Amino acid sequence: MTWVALLDYASVIVFALSGALAASRAQLDLVGFSFIACLTAVGGGTIRDVLLGRDFIFWVQDPTYIVIAVVVATVVFFTAHLVESRQNTLLWADAVALSVAVAAGVGVAMKLDQPAVIIALMGVSTGCFGGLMRDVVCNEVPLVLKHGQLYASAALAGAIAAIIARELALAPVLVFATCGSITFILRAGSLWWGWSLPVYKSRPPRN
Amino acid sequence: MTWVALLDYASVIVFALSGALAASRAQLDLVGFSFIACLTAVGGGTIRDVLLGRDFIFWVQDPTYIVIAVVVATVVFFTAHLVESRQNTLLWADAVALSVAVAAGVGVAMKLDQPAVIIALMGVSTGCFGGLMRDVVCNEVPLVLKHGQLYASAALAGAIAAIIARELALAPVLVFATCGSITFILRAGSLWWGWSLPVYKSRPPRN
Amino acid sequence: MTWVALLDYASVIVFALSGALAASRAQLDLVGFSFIACLTAVGGGTIRDVLLGRDFIFWVQDPTYIVIAVVVATVVFFTAHLVESRQNTLLWADAVALSVAVAAGVGVAMKLDQPAVIIALMGVSTGCFGGLMRDVVCNEVPLVLKHGQLYASAALAGAIAAIIARELALAPVLVFATCGSITFILRAGSLWWGWSLPVYKSRPPRN
Repeated sequence: MTWVALLDYASVIVFALSGALAASRAQLDLVGFSFIACLTAVGGGTIRDVLLGRDFIFWVQDPTYIVIAVVVATVVFFTAHLVESRQNTLLWADAVALSVAVAAGVGVAMKLDQPAVIIALMGVSTGCFGGLMRDVVCNEVPLVLKHGQLYASAALAGAIAAIIARELALAPVLVFATCGSITFILRAGSLWWGWSLPVYKSRPPRN
Repeated sequence: MTWVALLDYASVIVFALSGALAASRAQLDLVGFSFIACLTAVGGGTIRDVLLGRDFIFWVQDPTYIVIAVVVATVVFFTAHLVESRQNTLLWADAVALSVAVAAGVGVAMKLDQPAVIIALMGVSTGCFGGLMRDVVCNEVPLVLKHGQLYASAALAGAIAAIIARELALAPVLVFATCGSITFILRAGSLWWGWSLPVYKSRPPRN
Repeated sequence: MTWVALLDYASVIVFALSGALAASRAQLDLVGFSFIACLTAVGGGTIRDVLLGRDFIFWVQDPTYIVIAVVVATVVFFTAHLVESRQNTLLWADAVALSVAVAAGVGVAMKLDQPAVIIALMGVSTGCFGGLMRDVVCNEVPLVLKHGQLYASAALAGAIAAIIARELALAPVLVFATCGSITFILRAGSLWWGWSLPVYKSRPPRN
C-alpha cells in the first residue's frame, strides 16, 4: 500500500467519525448516519480527484473506503451516547482528519508533478471540503468560516511545510509527517489556546 | 432508446416538476423557475456521471433533457396556482422522481460493470443529490435530512433490491421495475403512514 | 493570449473582489479572504470545465488565476475599510464579473462546437455558480434567488445575444462584447431601476 492510500484510509476513518457525530446531533437514522459519514469522509478527496482530472475517483476504484465509512457510522450510531461531549469529540476528530487529509491531498498532487501552487491548493481543498460539505448539509456554521480560528490557515501552513520539506529532499514519509504535524499543531493550538490570525473587523456590515 | 435513457427522461420530468414547485414557493420569475428545475432535474445524474468518469455528462451529450426541464418549468409557472397544495404535490413528485432516478443511477453503474457497493451508491447519489441541491439552494431543510422519514434509506433499499434482482438473472426491465417500486413503496409508506427507522435520539445536542 | 483566456482573467479579478468583500462582511482572516476569493473567482469556470469534460480545469493548468485571486484578496483585506458601502460595491463587482464570466463560458462552449442550448447553459453556469457558491458558503441569500431582480435572466439574455451575434458572423471580439454588454445592461438596470420579470406570486407558500 502506498503512503497516499494509507493517508486516504486514515482520513476516511476520522472524517467518517466526525460526520457520524454531526448526524447524531441532527438525530438521523442509521442510513442517514452512513450518508453523512460517507459525504464527509470522501468529499474532499473526490473534489481533489475531479479537479486533477484523475481517471478514477479514489473510492470508485476501491470501494473499501465506503465500507469503512459505513462501519464507522454504525459503530457511532450505537455508541455515541457514551461520549461525554459529542461536539467536542467532533471538533477534535475533525482536526485529526483535516491534518491527515491535507497530507493526502498534497501527496496526490506531488505524485502528479503539479506546480507548488496547485500542490498547496489540493492540500487545502482535500482537507477543507469534506468538513465543509458536512456542515452545509447539516446546516451548521462551517468550521472553515468560524472567525478567530485557524482552519484553512492551518491546512495551508501544513501544505507549504510539505513543499519545503520536499525541496529539502526529505523522504516521503517525513514530508507527509511534517505536513500533518504542522496542520494539527496549528489547528489544535487554535482550539486549545485560541491561536488565531488577525481578522478583518474594522467595521461590521450594516445590514 | 435504452431503458437507462428512458429512466433518465422520466426522472428529469418529475424532478423538474418538483424543482419548479420549489421555485413557486420562493416566488421566482420564469428564468428562476427554469434554473431550479434544471438544477434539480439533472443534478443527481450529473454527479453520477462525474463520479463514474463517463466521457460525457448525459445532458451535455443530449440537450433534450434541458429543453424538457424548461418546458416543465414553464407549464408549472403558469399553472401552479391551480394546485391545491404545492408543498404536498412537491413531496409526491419528489418521491416519484427519487424512485425513477435511483433506477437510472443503478442502470448506468450496472452498464459500466461496477461492483455492488458502487452500484448501490450511484443509485442513492443519483436519487438524492438533485433534491438535495434544490433544497440547499432554495434554503429549505433537505428532505434527505428530515428525521423520522425514509429517504436515503428508501433509495438504498431500492438499489439493493435491484442488485438482488440482477443476481436472480431477471430481465433489465424487471430489475429497474423492482428497484423503482421498492424505493417508491418505502418512501410513500413513510409519507403516508409515517414508516421510519429508529433514529439516534438518546440525547439532543447541548447547544 | 486568446479572448477566452482574457475573459477568464478579467472575471477572476472581479469575482475575487466580490468574494473578498463577502469575506470582509463575515470578518474572516487573510487566509479566509483568499479562500472565499478563490472559490468565487474560479467556481463557475470549474463547473463549466467539469461539465464539458475538458482535459484540464483552467486554473489547474495555469495557476496564475489563483495567484491573482489571492493578490486581490490581500489588497481588499487591507483596504476594504476605505470603501463607503461594501455591500453596494460587492453588488456592482458581482454584476461586472457576471457579465464577463457569461462571455467566458459562452466562449469555451463555442470553441468546443457545442449546440446552442449547451452554449447558453454554459454561459449561465459559468456566470452564476461562482457567486452562488460564495453566497451559500457565506450563508447569505444567493443573489441568483433574490426575487424581483434579473440575474440568471440577464445571464441567459447575454448568452442568447452571443449565439445570435455568432449566427450573424460577427468577429469573436464583437460576439463576446455583445454578450457581456447585454448581460451587464440588464443586471445594472435591475440594480439601478429595479427592472424585473413578472414573478410567480399568485399565492405565498402556506408554511
